[in-house]
Amino acid sequence: MWTVSENILDLASIHHKETIFTIGNGYLCTRGAFEESYPNERRATLIHGVFDDVPVAFTELANAPDWLGLTIFLNGQKFSLQDGVLHQYERTLDLKSGLLKRVVRWQAPGGQTATLIFERFASLADEHLLALRCRILPEFDGTIEVRASLNSNMDNEGVLHWRFLDQRLIPTPQGQVAALRVRTRKSKIELAYAMRLDVKINAHQNNQPEYWDVESIPTLRVARAVRVGQNVEITKFVAIATSRDSADPMSLALRHLENASDFETAFSAHTRAWEDEWNRCDVIIEGDEEAQLAVRFSLYHLLIAAPRHDNRVNIGAKTLSGFGYRGHAFWDTEIFMLPFFTFTSPHIARNLLEYRYLTLPAAREKARRAGYEGAWFAWESAATGEEVTPTWVPDFHDPKKLARVWTGDLAIHISADVAYGVWQYWQVTGDDEWFARYGAELILDAAKFYASRAEWDAQRQCYTFSDVIGPDEYHDHVNNNAYTNLLAQWNLQIALETLDWLKQHFPTQAQTLTERLRLTPESLGKMRDVAEKILILEDENGLIEQFEGYFKLKDVNLSDYEPRTRSMHEIFGIEEANHYQIIKQPDVLMLLYLLRERYDQKRIRINYDYYNPRTDHTYGSSLGPSIQAAIACVMGDVEDAYEHFLRAARADLRDVRGNAGDGIHAASAGGIWQAVVFGFAGLRVHGGEWAISPRLPKQWKRLSFRFWLHGKQHIVDIP
Amino acid sequence: MWTVSENILDLASIHHKETIFTIGNGYLCTRGAFEESYPNERRATLIHGVFDDVPVAFTELANAPDWLGLTIFLNGQKFSLQDGVLHQYERTLDLKSGLLKRVVRWQAPGGQTATLIFERFASLADEHLLALRCRILPEFDGTIEVRASLNSNMDNEGVLHWRFLDQRLIPTPQGQVAALRVRTRKSKIELAYAMRLDVKINAHQNNQPEYWDVESIPTLRVARAVRVGQNVEITKFVAIATSRDSADPMSLALRHLENASDFETAFSAHTRAWEDEWNRCDVIIEGDEEAQLAVRFSLYHLLIAAPRHDNRVNIGAKTLSGFGYRGHAFWDTEIFMLPFFTFTSPHIARNLLEYRYLTLPAAREKARRAGYEGAWFAWESAATGEEVTPTWVPDFHDPKKLARVWTGDLAIHISADVAYGVWQYWQVTGDDEWFARYGAELILDAAKFYASRAEWDAQRQCYTFSDVIGPDEYHDHVNNNAYTNLLAQWNLQIALETLDWLKQHFPTQAQTLTERLRLTPESLGKMRDVAEKILILEDENGLIEQFEGYFKLKDVNLSDYEPRTRSMHEIFGIEEANHYQIIKQPDVLMLLYLLRERYDQKRIRINYDYYNPRTDHTYGSSLGPSIQAAIACVMGDVEDAYEHFLRAARADLRDVRGNAGDGIHAASAGGIWQAVVFGFAGLRVHGGEWAISPRLPKQWKRLSFRFWLHGKQHIVDIP
Repeated sequence: MWTVSENILDLASIHHKETIFTIGNGYLCTRGAFEESYPNERRATLIHGVFDDVPVAFTELANAPDWLGLTIFLNGQKFSLQDGVLHQYERTLDLKSGLLKRVVRWQAPGGQTATLIFERFASLADEHLLALRCRILPEFDGTIEVRASLNSNMDNEGVLHWRFLDQRLIPTPQGQVAALRVRTRKSKIELAYAMRLDVKINAHQNNQPEYWDVESIPTLRVARAVRVGQNVEITKFVAIATSRDSADPMSLALRHLENASDFETAFSAHTRAWEDEWNRCDVIIEGDEEAQLAVRFSLYHLLIAAPRHDNRVNIGAKTLSGFGYRGHAFWDTEIFMLPFFTFTSPHIARNLLEYRYLTLPAAREKARRAGYEGAWFAWESAATGEEVTPTWVPDFHDPKKLARVWTGDLAIHISADVAYGVWQYWQVTGDDEWFARYGAELILDAAKFYASRAEWDAQRQCYTFSDVIGPDEYHDHVNNNAYTNLLAQWNLQIALETLDWLKQHFPTQAQTLTERLRLTPESLGKMRDVAEKILILEDENGLIEQFEGYFKLKDVNLSDYEPRTRSMHEIFGIEEANHYQIIKQPDVLMLLYLLRERYDQKRIRINYDYYNPRTDHTYGSSLGPSIQAAIACVMGDVEDAYEHFLRAARADLRDVRGNAGDGIHAASAGGIWQAVVFGFAGLRVHGGEWAISPRLPKQWKRLSFRFWLHGKQHIVDIP
Repeated sequence: MWTVSENILDLASIHHKETIFTIGNGYLCTRGAFEESYPNERRATLIHGVFDDVPVAFTELANAPDWLGLTIFLNGQKFSLQDGVLHQYERTLDLKSGLLKRVVRWQAPGGQTATLIFERFASLADEHLLALRCRILPEFDGTIEVRASLNSNMDNEGVLHWRFLDQRLIPTPQGQVAALRVRTRKSKIELAYAMRLDVKINAHQNNQPEYWDVESIPTLRVARAVRVGQNVEITKFVAIATSRDSADPMSLALRHLENASDFETAFSAHTRAWEDEWNRCDVIIEGDEEAQLAVRFSLYHLLIAAPRHDNRVNIGAKTLSGFGYRGHAFWDTEIFMLPFFTFTSPHIARNLLEYRYLTLPAAREKARRAGYEGAWFAWESAATGEEVTPTWVPDFHDPKKLARVWTGDLAIHISADVAYGVWQYWQVTGDDEWFARYGAELILDAAKFYASRAEWDAQRQCYTFSDVIGPDEYHDHVNNNAYTNLLAQWNLQIALETLDWLKQHFPTQAQTLTERLRLTPESLGKMRDVAEKILILEDENGLIEQFEGYFKLKDVNLSDYEPRTRSMHEIFGIEEANHYQIIKQPDVLMLLYLLRERYDQKRIRINYDYYNPRTDHTYGSSLGPSIQAAIACVMGDVEDAYEHFLRAARADLRDVRGNAGDGIHAASAGGIWQAVVFGFAGLRVHGGEWAISPRLPKQWKRLSFRFWLHGKQHIVDIP
């Protein structure tokens, strides 16, 4: 089970399929739009770090010039699936090799028939290189014409980010190269594209395309006479580089293009690189094809979006596969995606965490502006880590009104989420050097933020966090959200541990950080004091109140609303939802899941039994189901867990939420790995030790996966 | 004085010059961008009525595909004023014939020199036809290559409105025609472009361009060997039609292209059409070249934006010459521009007023939603007359904050402004049929709005209008703005007059309107009552208070702030400006100017002396100076009047406000005509009678103009 495929063309579900069939290599991704254009397509190539200004959302990944364009004419008739007769159609994404292939037997309106085989990949062996091959087997004597272009005129749903700079034709030993340079309008990031077209007829080289020098769309064109049974093979190589990579991106692009000799050679290097990925990351499930495919599909999409050579970028909530959330990164990274990378690909996890390290200045500035100390990371984070959560968005029902988005102001749990990712990375990798150099500062400065943000309640003699939003976004402006308070407490505790550890093992760095972060005895005392006296709303049985007053909210039976096709948020309305106990996603349970070593089964159970039936599992947050599956496993409810797992597994593949066209649900994809590994397999680690406690769905015949712990790879194989 | 010209190329003031050198024909306008592209240009063609959705401002005129593109190569070297040596440069806009001409003698970096003469016009004889001619006189033996394109990839400052539909090459008896179809994304307006390229060498036809079929940018290309002294002449004809004109816009465009035989013939028809315009509209000023040119320049820009064959559109605050205010129409039309059309071109005035008639459903809906009756016209009006004033705009200083724009909610004087335009049209033209058919309903329904909007003040026993914005926008949320109250009163009075007149002359229409507008005795009684008892804040000397409490505001001496380069609004800040008597533009004086037959000289004088020194003439509203000039004439202060007049005259030609790049200040242009005709010449009309009371600036040797009154043209010639 390595392939996602379709054999029926459905131009109505084009956006969903474009997301599904996205290819990429951790440097960029290209959505699965066709080589030829169709109306309403969302054709997009998104390159890590290439952000540009946009109204309302402040910044977004700019949809880069299109490199796919290939217009084909059979005897002068333009190849388009909207015309003519489609005799055969199949599209396959091979997750193992990251190759997207389309086989089409098509009859032009004039009667000429040909089989066309399109293949494309974004090289994982050379992240600047993209390759597209089209083989045409004509069943007629006549002409075949192919036009290959680079198109600068790409937009993000109506917003244009590019200024054309220049284009030219460059002679090279391998043939004429069309070169294009563009620049983002505000952020002034330059992109260089270089394109070469190799043409073979019956395996004989037959190049020399004509050049159409139309500004902003350089085009190479070949027209050849063919006979029945001949084999026309066109390879379009495109190399891309940006001014983020080099001061002279065009030279860089040209060098990478020069390294590409032919499709097969480039593809071999690419598949070897993918072999390495799967050797580290693959999860094998036998006895359940849907689960097997869903897991590999999820890991494929995490892997193609994961920066391998760049620590200045993060993975957005929709990876690089769509316009949703505009490429901004959320807590989704540390809490949902990062565990997969930490356990299988520490080099990638490190890049993601170093990104947070590089955004410390912006996080400090965010805290400072709000009147606090330490590092308050952006709820939505992009190029610099400045807060880019929209503050106001047009009201869905009346665009003349605006709705206030509060997460950027109130979701303070983000700093502890980052600290959690750092701590977990250290625990799993045992990478002390990295932790001392980068991790410790992140944890300490996050703790400093919470110490300064906590408010002393003289009456109750405790610290509180008022006016926050927890993971459950159906309730905003709440006080003492349990997730926030307890994770902040945890953050403060491990910060103090961290400093002690540093003093022992890296005394110079301890000294440096003490000075840089002004960790005076008073400020450390404050951390300790807040950690000890933070308000915890837990009853004598261990039932935790999600936030102050939550238990007094109206309680309804969710099943009274079934069947439904909308979220409870929509059914109640944004304001009204605040008055009910219905929650969008696990909140207390999420906390218990993250800190599961601290809670015994009984305490988790009492909370599980309370919150599980009050969670909008079907139409609430897409972040919910996978984690819910993992928690259900902890509870031993494997059947329940599997139901949640399937819900997550289908979010993108079956588009059950109807929004897969906006891009992959990356947190859900990361959560699927956690559900399998921490849930069904029950993996626990402690120091360099690990243990599993499998509770597999009954149809699963085998579950096998790999992970790294303290520098060693371990293989789990559960029969 | 018919020409605006430059002979020095200044690529830094490119936006200002693009506005100045805009050409148009009342169907569309094209900014004076060059045929070849330059970075940061604001190349734009705006077509009346072709609106599409945009965030924040709701709708805007979509920047149509570019028809100008002409890329020229001399011996393979691309013609660009950024390279090579510029030996001669001159650009001239002939206001008389609407021809924009550029003469360039240029030496390519490789040494080849040529003189290039570019000419373009938007045919006034055939509003679908555009013509561009380039004559090249090479001083070398070699090749000349020309590429002529249509470019769909145009945006409105980063916002894209187009979807490409298709393009093709069509053989016609006159040669190959490149045809392009695009459609706006949301409003689904289709545009059809057809382009033909005629090439002559030494006056001999030499066509057969090559076609580069690059999607979205169809391009015709010719490359010819030339010798020193040969004369290469390229004519690019483009015809444009939209789905607003025809269900088959492409056929329409092709027909109009077919009618274009050659440049000279098309140009002759065009100049004859312009002759007719100037025969109706010209104003002659002798002894003052700057004034002469400024007036003709203003009238030229009003005429090229004036819809001659379409009553579904209006003239935006920046005409069709720039992106400012996004093509939205304001009170600027009726109060500032319309008098020029009413007196010189009633057929155009009629279209503009019928536009308001067609927006009555939206105006009624706006009133109804706010809880009122009658017609409350949109402060910013576009395709339908729905209110499209932005409600919230990003704060200039902090884009994460928003500023509320109140004019759409509070500027209620707009309905009386429309009524004023209607009434004046009727008084000047004596067009009873039109008035009965269209005008009466506009006036009556506007009056109905005011009758329902007025609030009864039991204590003072009068009606009030609270929480409004008058013409002076330095003060918002004011009560009983004098302009609003008195113009509403006037509206109510003429509405009652109108109904009486209708009953006498068009009894059926009187009956129809009585029923349609539910003009019951009660509702008419209410109109009368409000008109009688509306609060007027006027002291015993006749000094009118701009709004309730205005006299209690802080009074400052404007000269204490001189010299300054910013508006008082910027100096005080938006909030703080509310606390001062400084005003942005005439408000009480504007009212006295409009209703000047009702006020004697003494009453105007006392108000003039009070408000004139408190007005931010230099950096306040661009609407102010021309009207201030007219009022100063009424006061006999000719010198003062002339100073204001020059300020208006220089708004665009000299870009004194620094924002001419956003488009022509259309209200100022209309005000300039009013300052000359109503101010310096002192024209008054009453019924079919007219009189002048000239008070010319001393250097003016002659002032002559024409106008139509009750169906007869009159010529004024003041020596």
